[in-house]
Amino acid sequence: MPPRATLPLGNLLYAQSGGPTAVINATAAAVIETARKAKRTIGKVYAAKNGIIGALREQLIDTGFESPDAIRALAHTPGAAFGSCRYKLKSLEQSRAQYERLIEVFRAHDIRWFLYNGGNDSADTSNKISRIGEALGYPVHCIGVPKTVDNDLVVTDNCPGFGSVAKYTALSILEASLDVQSMFESSTKVFVMEVMGRHAGWIAAAAGLAGKRADDPPQIILFPEVPFDEARFLAQVKATVERVGYCSVVVSEGLKGPDGRFLAEAGSKDAFGHTQLGGVGPMIANLIKERLGYKFHWAVSDYLQRAASHIASKTDYEQARAVGKAAVEYAVAGRNAVMPVIRRVSQRPYRWRIEPAPLDSIANHEKKMPPAFIRDDGYGITAACRRYLEPLIQGEAYPSYGSNGLPDYVQLKLRAVRRKLAAYSIADK
Amino acid sequence: MPPRATLPLGNLLYAQSGGPTAVINATAAAVIETARKAKRTIGKVYAAKNGIIGALREQLIDTGFESPDAIRALAHTPGAAFGSCRYKLKSLEQSRAQYERLIEVFRAHDIRWFLYNGGNDSADTSNKISRIGEALGYPVHCIGVPKTVDNDLVVTDNCPGFGSVAKYTALSILEASLDVQSMFESSTKVFVMEVMGRHAGWIAAAAGLAGKRADDPPQIILFPEVPFDEARFLAQVKATVERVGYCSVVVSEGLKGPDGRFLAEAGSKDAFGHTQLGGVGPMIANLIKERLGYKFHWAVSDYLQRAASHIASKTDYEQARAVGKAAVEYAVAGRNAVMPVIRRVSQRPYRWRIEPAPLDSIANHEKKMPPAFIRDDGYGITAACRRYLEPLIQGEAYPSYGSNGLPDYVQLKLRAVRRKLAAYSIADK
Repeated sequence: MPPRATLPLGNLLYAQSGGPTAVINATAAAVIETARKAKRTIGKVYAAKNGIIGALREQLIDTGFESPDAIRALAHTPGAAFGSCRYKLKSLEQSRAQYERLIEVFRAHDIRWFLYNGGNDSADTSNKISRIGEALGYPVHCIGVPKTVDNDLVVTDNCPGFGSVAKYTALSILEASLDVQSMFESSTKVFVMEVMGRHAGWIAAAAGLAGKRADDPPQIILFPEVPFDEARFLAQVKATVERVGYCSVVVSEGLKGPDGRFLAEAGSKDAFGHTQLGGVGPMIANLIKERLGYKFHWAVSDYLQRAASHIASKTDYEQARAVGKAAVEYAVAGRNAVMPVIRRVSQRPYRWRIEPAPLDSIANHEKKMPPAFIRDDGYGITAACRRYLEPLIQGEAYPSYGSNGLPDYVQLKLRAVRRKLAAYSIADK
Repeated sequence: MPPRATLPLGNLLYAQSGGPTAVINATAAAVIETARKAKRTIGKVYAAKNGIIGALREQLIDTGFESPDAIRALAHTPGAAFGSCRYKLKSLEQSRAQYERLIEVFRAHDIRWFLYNGGNDSADTSNKISRIGEALGYPVHCIGVPKTVDNDLVVTDNCPGFGSVAKYTALSILEASLDVQSMFESSTKVFVMEVMGRHAGWIAAAAGLAGKRADDPPQIILFPEVPFDEARFLAQVKATVERVGYCSVVVSEGLKGPDGRFLAEAGSKDAFGHTQLGGVGPMIANLIKERLGYKFHWAVSDYLQRAASHIASKTDYEQARAVGKAAVEYAVAGRNAVMPVIRRVSQRPYRWRIEPAPLDSIANHEKKMPPAFIRDDGYGITAACRRYLEPLIQGEAYPSYGSNGLPDYVQLKLRAVRRKLAAYSIADK
């Protein structure tokens, strides 16, 4: 009989939550690779299919069937390879049965570590699962793993996923503006690009990295933090076109009017009760056309911006891997209800390290742009903002390309783990 | 006194026309580099500011002030670095004064070679300038240099500029579809991406490269060549969502209804009399939402797709350089009224060469997608189409990146050449 110390202590479950980023699978790959190395402690490395919904339904994936090559390719693949969802568990009182179900699934599959890769809602859920496990006599080490393109998590200096969308956004407005610059005399005078960011203008701010000098594009950024003043905006566009010849505008999907309501409301709401946005870009472009008569073009890159693994920021990629690795290390070390966060150690040269932070301090908070990051006129970023953002878009984590001229993005096998429990319906959410 | 043979024979003028591509400046860089090497023959290498408008206005740029490093960076910079325009000279009868003015400018600046980088309109203009020069006793060697994202030039196997937008398009729909694939169970079920292509569906077709097997995204491509059948389309979307779980749709801006009219007409027209399009993407997405009730997202990348030098196809980049180099070589060799075109010499391995074709055979023609390239159901590409397209997106011509995390795109000095003629107004176009 082998000595008892060689038996693993249990299995690990990793789940992805919310909207994918260009590097969430880099985190997943690091989790799997790190956990595989800890095989004296960790037995199976499972992933939940479609996030917490799969955990509730006992739809688990055994990542052990994925080859090392597949995991390496996974690190550069966009989307959320194990599936994700927007499904928020409510309070322990309201959704107690769901929390208990999770613990039942964990117990059935000997899951001792739960790593939940998401934003502040996921941090909150991880925190609650940790508490309910304790209460039910089945302690689970719950680690929140940060991920969000919106960069709106508190405590951490920045969020994995944001650096890549920031790089894509700055790059895209730079490229499109060079195009507009070529032809403004006889063609398009105003270009409007809509970017993501429901409540915080971090992605819009990143567009500001494209310009170095006054009058460099984008000449106007519309932040969700700055109420839209139509007359002042139109005057700014007109003055820019008259001075520069053209005007590049970046507008956040979350732009609000003076009444505090979103300018573009599609009317429908997602599962979290958030209004589904989209369309403020063409709206602003048409406003300019109607009121100022300028020829315009507009772009809405939508999912393209958060799935652009082909131009992921190397810094972002490395941080996404680092939080995945640290999450497993924290789990193995017995930590609980923490999140590996990024601490900026030095500005020049930019240096960072990962350290644990209590989920309590992160859950359900939202980091907005500091007022000192927005220019006095409300239409651009300050030098302080540039200093904060610029390190996050450094380097290019290029994927490898196949013989078809496209990246070698991987489709995993996603082999299901055999169920041990009766079927469970989450229709009663 | 130096021997007469060492004196250059005259100066060369290069001009850019129409919408920029990711690699039009690669052509420009090759023209300049090749012309600089031919200094026994070619004196100054001028560029027209904003295309033919600058030539008419005698707004010339002396490229001699740009450093070799700047020209190297130029090759990877999007936009049209010397400025471009949409301005079409009419027939020799209707616009005789303008053609004569061009010859007057050429004569004043000893311009013996005119290289016009554009599509079939530009080929037509180059052809006419060549004829009028002859008639006025000031022969100019006119070379058309191919460029268009639309890939709609005849004779040439493909157009420089197309391979890069094709790569961007296939890559973007692949990435966005992986994102949709992650979450369709609880979130977005239909994703619609609008792409360029006014009359020819080449760019839309390129999206088809993202999918290899049946049911791979994009599951539906809407070509301008296939009249839109609303009921059949909605049935296809529904069947796809029910079978695959989600549906990725690529729609060409030039999609037409059964009546032959563009589905989305912005109402305004550009200088060539073409209707300015945009908005068919959200229109199709909203149609799906209204009729089928699926949650949707849509993207319109607009200028981003043709300015994406950060992921230019290496094949495209090399062909763009090759036509620029050949254009100068043809000019120096005394050829006239020709265009360097791309001939596909071998399919496997893909090999190509540049050869001259008479402008007469190219001007004012338009190459549409052959019916054999569109799948029988009208919603995808055939194997023959894939064989044609795939070589064009091979390789990545990455730009270098600066310390700010963004590509080292160059802003040229654009030093103006001193005028020799009286001011000229082109208001009378």
